[in-house]
Order: sequence, then structure tokens, then C-alpha cells
Amino acid sequence: MHKVGYEFKDSSLCELALTHRSCGKRNNERLEFLGDSILNFVIAEDLYARFPQAREGELSRLRAGQVKGETLAEIARELNFGDYLRLGSGELKSGGFRRDSILADSVEAVIGAVYLDSDMETARALVLGWYKERLEKINLKKSQKDSKTRLQEFLQSRRQPLPNYELVKVEGEAHEQTFYILCHVEMLPKATKGKGSSRRQAEQEAARAAIELLQVEKS
Amino acid sequence: MHKVGYEFKDSSLCELALTHRSCGKRNNERLEFLGDSILNFVIAEDLYARFPQAREGELSRLRAGQVKGETLAEIARELNFGDYLRLGSGELKSGGFRRDSILADSVEAVIGAVYLDSDMETARALVLGWYKERLEKINLKKSQKDSKTRLQEFLQSRRQPLPNYELVKVEGEAHEQTFYILCHVEMLPKATKGKGSSRRQAEQEAARAAIELLQVEKS
Repeated sequence: MHKVGYEFKDSSLCELALTHRSCGKRNNERLEFLGDSILNFVIAEDLYARFPQAREGELSRLRAGQVKGETLAEIARELNFGDYLRLGSGELKSGGFRRDSILADSVEAVIGAVYLDSDMETARALVLGWYKERLEKINLKKSQKDSKTRLQEFLQSRRQPLPNYELVKVEGEAHEQTFYILCHVEMLPKATKGKGSSRRQAEQEAARAAIELLQVEKS
Repeated sequence: MHKVGYEFKDSSLCELALTHRSCGKRNNERLEFLGDSILNFVIAEDLYARFPQAREGELSRLRAGQVKGETLAEIARELNFGDYLRLGSGELKSGGFRRDSILADSVEAVIGAVYLDSDMETARALVLGWYKERLEKINLKKSQKDSKTRLQEFLQSRRQPLPNYELVKVEGEAHEQTFYILCHVEMLPKATKGKGSSRRQAEQEAARAAIELLQVEKS
């Protein structure tokens, strides 16, 4: 496992982490449980520090993308975990999705094993090494859903009617116009306002104002 | 906050952790995100070490009970967090469930703040101090569902017919009998066997054998 970037003091821990439950009772499921919680913490802490302006919902969404099975399976492939996995005879021939989920689980199990074999600092450094490029590539702006989408999702999840955007005024000459929008939401006593150099931008601003009010309300 | 058991070097962190989002943009939501991941790790690690025989599913279930909102709200009450919370005027009069969820969130936020103010060792010791009696009280046997229940739930969740327990033999005199059971499960090619000093015990053993085969299958 030279690609992993860690040398185990206790090689039986490493072996256990790569032993799928199809091999029998001694398998990597408990290590996976532990490793999952370490991975979640390490990524949470990195995102918290990396995006000081991001709200909690945004941080949760970014983390979910990093710790989902698909991403973990990618990492497992980059580290060649497939060559070291111990599978029961029934699993050896299985392919596709099942194999991906086995690979993903093994990444978490190895994180748990590294932690037990060393300490949090070592496990964290290892995980952040594996994730370096993925974390650097995150584009907060791009990953953020726009306010109109967020408002719509918020209302739909509460079985509320969709918001109504009303254009109340357009000022200025062509190419320098300012649009004024009111956003009507049934849950809110007053419409929220937005203005911008395009109708869409003004609607986004009004939607964002509505979300802020609703989020204070809902808590 | 003398009951909390931690003295902040940076008191603004403590304040932020106790500031609900109803107060405005500077609130404890981001700290809650961070603290949640630390809490999950600390409890996972403790349960992992405390119950070396517990399977992953059991550990997950035990942890869920420890980190759920209800438990966190209890802890917040024991630590008198309610006296220190900063709420917006709209929230001051709200009671009941809403207040419980605010209290629960503040516990996670304080954990995040303590971690940022110190380190993982300190945060872990603090959390384990708050949880000491709760963790010591966990009774693995009692919290474990019996195998017949687990088998039934497993099959129901997959829309499978219920298992069939067949008594095939009873050996020995009264008070020293041995019961032999076959457990028939449609998903399995062969019935699994169980024997025990009561019919129920034999059924449990046969059910456990079936679960083990099914869990290898499903992976």
C-alpha cells in the first residue's frame, strides 16, 4: 500500500481494514464506523476554516459531496485499494456498484485503522493529503445554489405555494437600467424587495431577503 | 457558565456559540456544524472502545441515541445553558420543542467553540465528562434487538415474506431438553439451523445464522 502514504506499526490493523465482511466475522465494519466519524470531522474542520463566510447549510452540502460513496470510491481507486482488498469468494466476482461501495467502505476503515495505529494528527494529515486537490478545487460561488432555487426548495419542503415575483419599476436608460422586484411569499407578512441591473438579479436579491426572514422564523 | 467545566481563553467564541440565529448574521450555526462532527467522533470512539464485541450497526444505533436532539437538550439543561443563550426578541417567548432544539444546537456549538479555543484532547475530555453517566449506563444486551426481531425487520424492509421456524427434533428428558429448529427464509437457498435448551433460544440461534448469511449476501 505504498500509495496510501502511511506505514502501519501494527500491520494486522491494516489487514483488518481491508477485510470485507464477506470474509467472515473478523471484518472492517467496526473500523469503518470509526473512520467515518474521523473523516466527517476532518472534512468539516477543513471546510469551516477554508470558507469563513459559508453558512452552515452550505458547509453541510459541501461536506456531503466530499464524503459520499462515489468520492470515496474514486479515492480508493487512486490509492489502488482494490489490489489489497480481502473479499470472500462470493464477492470476488461482483462488479460495478457493489464493488464501488466496498471500495468506499474500505477507505473509511483504513482511516479508522490509521487513527488507532497513530493519532488524530496523523490521520488528519493523511486524509487531507488524499483530499488536497478536491478541497482546493471547490468553488464556493459555483457550488452555491442561487437564492431563487433555495427559496423554492424551502417552500416546497414545507408544502407552501411558490413565491411570486412582481416587477414594480424599471428606471434608467437601456443598458443602464435598474429593476425593482417584490417577492411575495405567503408565509411572510410583507413582500421582500430586490433591485439590480437585471430582472434576474433583482429577483435573486428579493429571494435572498425572503430566505433570511424565513430562516429566522423557522428556527 | 461554571457548570460547563471549561474556561474560555477567547470569551467571544463562547458568546458566539450561545448566540442563536434569531440574533442576526453572527450566530452559532457554523460552530454547530463543527461541533456536531466532533461530538460524533468522540462518541463513536468511546463506543468503539467500550464495546469491542458490538457490530457496526449496533454502534451506529447506540451513537444515534447519544447524539439525538433530546439527549443534547437534556445536557443543555443540566449545564444551565438556557441561562446564557442569546436569543432574538422573536425567540424569547417561544417554548417547548422549539426551545429544546435551540438548546440542543447550542451544545454542539459550544463543543465546536471549545475545540477552536483549545484542542481535540480538551474537547473530548469535556464531552466525555458530560456524557460519563450516560455512557456508563448503556446496557448492550438490553439495547440489542434479538435476532428474530432483526431478521424480521431485515426481511420486511426488503418486502420479503416472513421467516418460517420449523421444530425438527426435541431430545432429552423434561428440564434437560434440546430443541432443534430450522429457519426457512425465501431469500436463502438452504434453511439455517439452531439448537438450544428452549424452543425460543433455538429459534434465536437459527435466526442469527440466517442474518449472517443475508448480511454477507446483501453487501
